[in-house]
Amino acid sequence: MSKVNIPPVVLIPVRSPLLVGVNVDSKPNFSTYGAGGHVSSSPPIMAVPFMHQRHTLKGVRENNNFSVNVPSTKQANEVDYCGVVSGRDTDKVLDCKFDVFYGELKTAPMISQCPVNFECRVLHLLDLGSHVVAIAEVVKTYISEECLTDGKPDMETINPLLVGMTGVSSSYYALGGEVAERGVAGKEIKRG
Amino acid sequence: MSKVNIPPVVLIPVRSPLLVGVNVDSKPNFSTYGAGGHVSSSPPIMAVPFMHQRHTLKGVRENNNFSVNVPSTKQANEVDYCGVVSGRDTDKVLDCKFDVFYGELKTAPMISQCPVNFECRVLHLLDLGSHVVAIAEVVKTYISEECLTDGKPDMETINPLLVGMTGVSSSYYALGGEVAERGVAGKEIKRG
Repeated sequence: MSKVNIPPVVLIPVRSPLLVGVNVDSKPNFSTYGAGGHVSSSPPIMAVPFMHQRHTLKGVRENNNFSVNVPSTKQANEVDYCGVVSGRDTDKVLDCKFDVFYGELKTAPMISQCPVNFECRVLHLLDLGSHVVAIAEVVKTYISEECLTDGKPDMETINPLLVGMTGVSSSYYALGGEVAERGVAGKEIKRG
Repeated sequence: MSKVNIPPVVLIPVRSPLLVGVNVDSKPNFSTYGAGGHVSSSPPIMAVPFMHQRHTLKGVRENNNFSVNVPSTKQANEVDYCGVVSGRDTDKVLDCKFDVFYGELKTAPMISQCPVNFECRVLHLLDLGSHVVAIAEVVKTYISEECLTDGKPDMETINPLLVGMTGVSSSYYALGGEVAERGVAGKEIKRG
């Protein structure tokens, strides 16, 4: 298979867009992130990058915490809006009609309409150039009651929104069909 | 919407599984990661977590670099296999029939069959508990020639594999249908 070099870039074509919530000057604000992720399990830790000039980073520094809200396909418009509009210029909570709730950390606003939410307490802030990366512990995880089946999170009712960015296209997607079962597919490979 | 607390966990239900490549004792080895992500753009930086006991971490420490290989739906069996089998016990390159190539860093093995590959140079290793997180700069990005359309990465031919983990189910998926266009969907929201 012939390979071509393109300028160095983190080309992970599909990601889960996340709505990151902070209080800025004691008011809730949400911004969309197509980056970051899970970086440790015990304790559960997220890495979330913030651009230096982002309104959101001001709130992270004020409170030393933030929330992560996982949107469903129903929130595509709100996810897109919160990615292009700054909380400096408008009240995104009002514009998007977000029903905001707070939890254990008191100052990390969460969006009731998003099926999954977690509160994160900042452990480290690393300046990596264009972005400051927050390494943060997940202290509480919330899920909408209707997204549980037998007490467990259910993909079908969570119905997560995905974002695809490749250069040719940039769109929001739903999850597609099952390709293979995890823990089973690998049994097709024979040990040499 | 009624919310329920579950034990604190990074519940991002859908992720892009990544095949991480390292040389261990000068031999290529690949392991599957369902975590980590993009944490800065300029320079392009990834955060990738490694479990302390992982064979892969030995290779990262030896070479101070690794590769990230983005699989397509065609590699579901190999992705699953490389997530459950250790390179201590078998030669996963032979078992999976991976066609391995090297690039600028000389010791970060890449998989020709994966549509997208990047070489990463480690900047920091952070011990966060269960995992050591590598903060690493992407120095070169490679893409299979047939995945370019007009010189740009094309989602359709990349055809990325996704992994979904929710508790109820744990499977590999393809990307689904388009829900909304990025940069357009948000225009449905009116500024208050």
